[in-house]
Amino acid sequence: MDGTTINNLQPGDEVNGAYALRGKKLLPYRDGKGFFIRLTLADKTGRVEGLVWEQAEEINKCCRAGDVVQVTGRVTEYNGAIQLNLASVEKCPDDQVVPERFISSTGITREEVWETWLNIAATIKTPPLKQLLLLMANDQNLMEAMAGSPAAKHNHHALLGGLWQHSMGIVKAAEGVAAAYPRVDRDLLVTGALLHDIGKIEEYRVRADIDYTDAGRLLGHIVLGAGLVDRYIARVPGFPAVLRLKLLHMIVSHHGHYEWQSPKRPKFLEAAILHQLDMIDAQVDMFGAATSSGRAPGDNWTGWVRSLDRYVFCG
Amino acid sequence: MDGTTINNLQPGDEVNGAYALRGKKLLPYRDGKGFFIRLTLADKTGRVEGLVWEQAEEINKCCRAGDVVQVTGRVTEYNGAIQLNLASVEKCPDDQVVPERFISSTGITREEVWETWLNIAATIKTPPLKQLLLLMANDQNLMEAMAGSPAAKHNHHALLGGLWQHSMGIVKAAEGVAAAYPRVDRDLLVTGALLHDIGKIEEYRVRADIDYTDAGRLLGHIVLGAGLVDRYIARVPGFPAVLRLKLLHMIVSHHGHYEWQSPKRPKFLEAAILHQLDMIDAQVDMFGAATSSGRAPGDNWTGWVRSLDRYVFCG
Amino acid sequence: MDGTTINNLQPGDEVNGAYALRGKKLLPYRDGKGFFIRLTLADKTGRVEGLVWEQAEEINKCCRAGDVVQVTGRVTEYNGAIQLNLASVEKCPDDQVVPERFISSTGITREEVWETWLNIAATIKTPPLKQLLLLMANDQNLMEAMAGSPAAKHNHHALLGGLWQHSMGIVKAAEGVAAAYPRVDRDLLVTGALLHDIGKIEEYRVRADIDYTDAGRLLGHIVLGAGLVDRYIARVPGFPAVLRLKLLHMIVSHHGHYEWQSPKRPKFLEAAILHQLDMIDAQVDMFGAATSSGRAPGDNWTGWVRSLDRYVFCG
Amino acid sequence: MDGTTINNLQPGDEVNGAYALRGKKLLPYRDGKGFFIRLTLADKTGRVEGLVWEQAEEINKCCRAGDVVQVTGRVTEYNGAIQLNLASVEKCPDDQVVPERFISSTGITREEVWETWLNIAATIKTPPLKQLLLLMANDQNLMEAMAGSPAAKHNHHALLGGLWQHSMGIVKAAEGVAAAYPRVDRDLLVTGALLHDIGKIEEYRVRADIDYTDAGRLLGHIVLGAGLVDRYIARVPGFPAVLRLKLLHMIVSHHGHYEWQSPKRPKFLEAAILHQLDMIDAQVDMFGAATSSGRAPGDNWTGWVRSLDRYVFCG
Amino acid sequence: MDGTTINNLQPGDEVNGAYALRGKKLLPYRDGKGFFIRLTLADKTGRVEGLVWEQAEEINKCCRAGDVVQVTGRVTEYNGAIQLNLASVEKCPDDQVVPERFISSTGITREEVWETWLNIAATIKTPPLKQLLLLMANDQNLMEAMAGSPAAKHNHHALLGGLWQHSMGIVKAAEGVAAAYPRVDRDLLVTGALLHDIGKIEEYRVRADIDYTDAGRLLGHIVLGAGLVDRYIARVPGFPAVLRLKLLHMIVSHHGHYEWQSPKRPKFLEAAILHQLDMIDAQVDMFGAATSSGRAPGDNWTGWVRSLDRYVFCG
Amino acid sequence: MDGTTINNLQPGDEVNGAYALRGKKLLPYRDGKGFFIRLTLADKTGRVEGLVWEQAEEINKCCRAGDVVQVTGRVTEYNGAIQLNLASVEKCPDDQVVPERFISSTGITREEVWETWLNIAATIKTPPLKQLLLLMANDQNLMEAMAGSPAAKHNHHALLGGLWQHSMGIVKAAEGVAAAYPRVDRDLLVTGALLHDIGKIEEYRVRADIDYTDAGRLLGHIVLGAGLVDRYIARVPGFPAVLRLKLLHMIVSHHGHYEWQSPKRPKFLEAAILHQLDMIDAQVDMFGAATSSGRAPGDNWTGWVRSLDRYVFCG
Repeated sequence: MDGTTINNLQPGDEVNGAYALRGKKLLPYRDGKGFFIRLTLADKTGRVEGLVWEQAEEINKCCRAGDVVQVTGRVTEYNGAIQLNLASVEKCPDDQVVPERFISSTGITREEVWETWLNIAATIKTPPLKQLLLLMANDQNLMEAMAGSPAAKHNHHALLGGLWQHSMGIVKAAEGVAAAYPRVDRDLLVTGALLHDIGKIEEYRVRADIDYTDAGRLLGHIVLGAGLVDRYIARVPGFPAVLRLKLLHMIVSHHGHYEWQSPKRPKFLEAAILHQLDMIDAQVDMFGAATSSGRAPGDNWTGWVRSLDRYVFCG
Repeated sequence: MDGTTINNLQPGDEVNGAYALRGKKLLPYRDGKGFFIRLTLADKTGRVEGLVWEQAEEINKCCRAGDVVQVTGRVTEYNGAIQLNLASVEKCPDDQVVPERFISSTGITREEVWETWLNIAATIKTPPLKQLLLLMANDQNLMEAMAGSPAAKHNHHALLGGLWQHSMGIVKAAEGVAAAYPRVDRDLLVTGALLHDIGKIEEYRVRADIDYTDAGRLLGHIVLGAGLVDRYIARVPGFPAVLRLKLLHMIVSHHGHYEWQSPKRPKFLEAAILHQLDMIDAQVDMFGAATSSGRAPGDNWTGWVRSLDRYVFCG
Repeated sequence: MDGTTINNLQPGDEVNGAYALRGKKLLPYRDGKGFFIRLTLADKTGRVEGLVWEQAEEINKCCRAGDVVQVTGRVTEYNGAIQLNLASVEKCPDDQVVPERFISSTGITREEVWETWLNIAATIKTPPLKQLLLLMANDQNLMEAMAGSPAAKHNHHALLGGLWQHSMGIVKAAEGVAAAYPRVDRDLLVTGALLHDIGKIEEYRVRADIDYTDAGRLLGHIVLGAGLVDRYIARVPGFPAVLRLKLLHMIVSHHGHYEWQSPKRPKFLEAAILHQLDMIDAQVDMFGAATSSGRAPGDNWTGWVRSLDRYVFCG
Repeated sequence: MDGTTINNLQPGDEVNGAYALRGKKLLPYRDGKGFFIRLTLADKTGRVEGLVWEQAEEINKCCRAGDVVQVTGRVTEYNGAIQLNLASVEKCPDDQVVPERFISSTGITREEVWETWLNIAATIKTPPLKQLLLLMANDQNLMEAMAGSPAAKHNHHALLGGLWQHSMGIVKAAEGVAAAYPRVDRDLLVTGALLHDIGKIEEYRVRADIDYTDAGRLLGHIVLGAGLVDRYIARVPGFPAVLRLKLLHMIVSHHGHYEWQSPKRPKFLEAAILHQLDMIDAQVDMFGAATSSGRAPGDNWTGWVRSLDRYVFCG
Repeated sequence: MDGTTINNLQPGDEVNGAYALRGKKLLPYRDGKGFFIRLTLADKTGRVEGLVWEQAEEINKCCRAGDVVQVTGRVTEYNGAIQLNLASVEKCPDDQVVPERFISSTGITREEVWETWLNIAATIKTPPLKQLLLLMANDQNLMEAMAGSPAAKHNHHALLGGLWQHSMGIVKAAEGVAAAYPRVDRDLLVTGALLHDIGKIEEYRVRADIDYTDAGRLLGHIVLGAGLVDRYIARVPGFPAVLRLKLLHMIVSHHGHYEWQSPKRPKFLEAAILHQLDMIDAQVDMFGAATSSGRAPGDNWTGWVRSLDRYVFCG
Repeated sequence: MDGTTINNLQPGDEVNGAYALRGKKLLPYRDGKGFFIRLTLADKTGRVEGLVWEQAEEINKCCRAGDVVQVTGRVTEYNGAIQLNLASVEKCPDDQVVPERFISSTGITREEVWETWLNIAATIKTPPLKQLLLLMANDQNLMEAMAGSPAAKHNHHALLGGLWQHSMGIVKAAEGVAAAYPRVDRDLLVTGALLHDIGKIEEYRVRADIDYTDAGRLLGHIVLGAGLVDRYIARVPGFPAVLRLKLLHMIVSHHGHYEWQSPKRPKFLEAAILHQLDMIDAQVDMFGAATSSGRAPGDNWTGWVRSLDRYVFCG
């Protein structure tokens, strides 16, 4: 379950590795005798065309677009582009797929998440919130999930570690805004910022791509996150009842509007600010992605940016 | 904590009972020497005016509109209307207030709820759903709460027992619709109908009126209900994972639209039908209330009905 | 105006039949001398490619995509697929097109509609409504139209007989719901259910596909249906004026919202319920179609379902 | 069924006339012995207070707010204002109420409408449209209804003759716009302008105020108008089928948007322009009313204008 | 144009000062001979009732609600409340009204604004932005207007100096957010934060209350602000053309959505963040105002907060 | 910078001219040795395919889709279609592109605009409005810009001179409507009609296509137009302050709704009418374009018209 990444394939190399099968077509030979397969393989570094000249009909049945396949063969070149002549193609079992080969990653590790999490907890002065964060930090599975989870399927922070990146952006902005407004309960805002999207560890699954889990599509990260945090709170002795409601409310209301799938709108200041910071962090990522993707030199505008529903100015 | 209901007060009677204090005004005597209080008392049978002639300033401080008060005095008559001359007025502690004195009730009892619940469970053929319902039926506090809870603060089923009345309407309609469409999973639809609004037992509190709890306003009955049912499911050994998601999804999506505070829209047929039946049952109650409230004889139309945002035809 | 259906064509057969021309392309021979036509033919069982090697330019002018064409030729095979080598292609006159060859059908007959209609009328106890239904049953053209009309161009019940299927679904559900709520006027609800979409017999025309009539696009089935029913009512002596308004109102308001092209919103309970039942029946059809169309084994979700604007869960 | 108008009442006069009863209150004498009535009477020229000192309880039962009452008594003065001391108050039967006493009127007569209608018809060159208009002109009841009908209950043209005033405004503007755009079918636009709101003669009824008829609330002037015009068209031999659909479509679509109760949006240019002209004419009336109602000298702005949902500039 | 503030009036004092006339009623003496005036006077510290016993009819004509009036008289007491017996009441000319008597103020001075403005300019490293801010700082009228202007008529920062308070909140939050995201152009964001609402100095006028100017209602602070800043930019030699468009765009788009009166939506990151910070600062003010206004002890919720369209949690 | 238009190219001709490069593809020769380019060239009369057989790789780098290119070569024919064999392809500098070659034009000249403008000014009786129009007429650059500017990038009046065509349509309709309603200030309405879209001369730039300028996308023609007209007003001595606000308001509010990018809604009658006339003129153009574009004979309906979001009836 390994192999050279696509951007490193060289003509003449042997190839033996796992790639995501994006498309596949069974085509007849020109002489009408038999078939070959033209397939598109991908990993996070790029795409390459592959050709299977033998046993095409059998191989065609054993896998379909969306699978990860283990292939062997040789790298060739055609019209200046790399191409693979494949001897074998086999479907990889789901549990042997290594998402990092297919999805970009921030590279953050469980240990780094754990350390930063403790650093944040160290700044919290409200005892029950501090206790809650310390309790959660002890859960290595949780730290692992926080380190590996994406924050979305498309649009913003759609990469391994994206959830943590997004949460950290908001935690930092929360500290900046809390410093500007003495009226804000900094500990509550920062804790809410850290935990607001935690339900996403149950909303997405990663294999050769990011997709929703059944629970993600049927319940969503808001309901999942409120349930998840509530189970940790239940383990903090004497966690104040009102503080529990406030923290859960921040999760429940952080999308800010019913239309955006929050069943409650923010009912106090920290919840209201959390929603705005969530918007800011998403926009930093989306505007950044829009302006850094390739434009022709001299253009002041990106093409249409679907996630932002507008053209973006880069002048 | 008792007393004659307002519609039974007779001139000349002594009065000694608990009433809801709807309004209160400290007024000066015409000669400018001292003050008296004019207050409005209510229970679910009506309203009556009361007057406190002595110690008005002390009594004025001990209670406020919204409280329930224990009063003593005598019933008089003025201009053809009943009036109370009160000797004493004292605030009742919250835990001594009997909601049935102030809010209409269907009169359903815990035992009746329990019995009907078991009858419904008896029609369910899907084992885990049947087990879940039987487990819940054993929880006497739950049956008590289902019997006493309203389904709303205003508009429809806003009375003690209203939640049960509303749930039963939908269960019956669900049976009718399931009979019309063989494609419908009857057991899932009926169970969803029974449980969809169960979070309302934590969303409302009743005293002298129906009001939201903090949890109700901050989390709402959809999030509360999903959590509540999930805790019962956890106690049914071997409850299928997908069936759990489907049942919780029916709770989460039963408002049908994001704008109506469902964080997910119905993703399968039974969830979609449940939402429509919820609409039908609410409309049966609201149209019924609109047309049975007093109109002048000969009028074909009600006045403006706020809950339905329209005039209703009764011709 | 007949011919083998596409799914029954066998290599080597002669073909002589009417097919819907979905697409057509005039292409040059490789040697640059003259042209041939590649066209796509369809009936309700599938699609097949056809080729015209001679007189291509003349034939190209005589018909266009959207027409039904009468073709003769021979069935061949190419790369494992059926193909037609056509000797002649001629446009069929509109009045010779048999829609059943091109559009799926429930197969319901005028007689069956008539019989069911009488059965429904037999359950109606309100004399003027019963008289109206009996009068309409006598109109054989109406029964014919009800048996053959689709209920939509896309999405739900878009087949010959779809209007009747849809109306019957709602009538049955109406009976179920009326049984659950004694307050409902069953006769009015059932009659409204039967007649609510009757304007669709003037809104659609069927030939090789379902399309709107001019009257359908310019006036719509709500205005057409109200006019149509009103003309039958005018023939029932002594039909009560208020009952006429109520029945016409149910047609006019059955889409429930202005945005959905109802010029009035439901003003009484039966009209309100009719709208909800219309929604339920459409959803039964749309969810059913979504989950029964081909998915890969193991998938818990359909692809994006345009008519429902969502992914549908089939787990 | 006559009497001096309120603005002409003089202290000392006898009064004997019909007035609209806007409000009524049975009040006890200060000595607690018996009751008197204070009532508010109105006609289109103003309001006056009346007092009934004898037989108050009997009189109180015979009428209610909203009725028109025939009163006798004497005009007095109190604190500089006119007051009526009434000897008798009796409800007027609905069919004896003369709306002109209570609702402002343009004063247009049936004959004037008829004459103008013929003048418009004379400018129409399209034979079937001209024939239709001439046929309608012959219907004296129709001319009477057009002359007397309001165009609304509130907001714009809410007076007797308002429908005609509104229709004439649009006809004139239609002529101006048709002159600017040669592409416009002037005859169709002008005919549509004349007939677009004709359903209002069945939508409103006038007595002591303007109110909706049952048909108006249940079907609305769009459905009523399309039906009404269609019945006249049926009497014009050989009226072209497409022209019928176009004219009916202009009625059906003239509100321009589904949300504004048009079940179809304009599908050709003349229908689209008719909608815009309808908007312009309503705005001319609403802005005009807003700026001509009393402001303090020096104010550049009206108060909040509900019909326009804004403040209006008069600087 | 001075006088004791209402909260400092003592029974027995002479009064001679300017107050806002909020309401006024001419009332007849009980004996029917002549009239007196009851009026309501206000300044920013409260309200008091006044009575004019002589020359009431003349005085009644000389002023109206909304005016500021200069009154003389004596303070009395009635039923425990202060009352004024007034000998004279005269309208104050508009240009003699001192807004600080009637509208709360932050008390910020032109000098303080100027100093802070220079401090902000000192942190800007982009030369043309620094030059622009320094140029504006030199305009004493501008500094004066910035110090005295409100940021709204209602809802948030509706006090003298409110515009500066609001701008400073956003500038500080902008610094915090810029520190969290290196991708952000801090200088552009901070300058935009400082200038985004500058058009409000032309949108509001203050006298006895805050109201819109004609220019404010007809053009709005977005159009006014863009014009105003553009005139200063024109005076900075060599201000880059693109930077000018970006700064003006930040003003034009800072409401974020068309529906909120921004004719353009944010097209680059700093404009997008500015909109979110504007939301945060308004919410800090509105939630703060909601929770600090008087609630009964023990209540966890405010009453309905109109500006936020919700109840606010204070638990 | 000239050349035969595409519709006039004849096989055998030499070609030497400027064309818009719409697309381009570098393709390998079949023998795998080297490359050729297939490109699509366009002017406003049509499209043609071109082929570059030599120096393909160099030429490929010197230009890209969207550029205007100067080409030399010869006209050939392939399969009945014109084709260009090109010897050279070079990018044209932007300032040498002649938009008239690529974009349709009304052909109106600066002189004709100027003359019509003066004729309109001659009908204006309000002195400051007349002075303003005369002053503007003197600005030859303005007249030039008005003559050459489009009114849109797509949809309606998207051609050189389209702005003038659109403005003249509204001026004429304004005269017609003003004649129908004496209450309308004709001079104000006509002046507003003439100037309402003037900001479009800064919103669009024309080269080989119509596109937005940076100022157009960042500020929009409403803000640009208000600024532009305000600078002319500043040069009319004694232009009344209120009239200035009214005229600028008409520009600012002419889209009628916030959602359509007007930061203010019309606050007086002439502004309200101007918005409606703007709608009418756009619809005349869009319906006209829809019905005159090619349909099959016998079709009563256009295909889907994107700009109108509907099918259009042409029966």
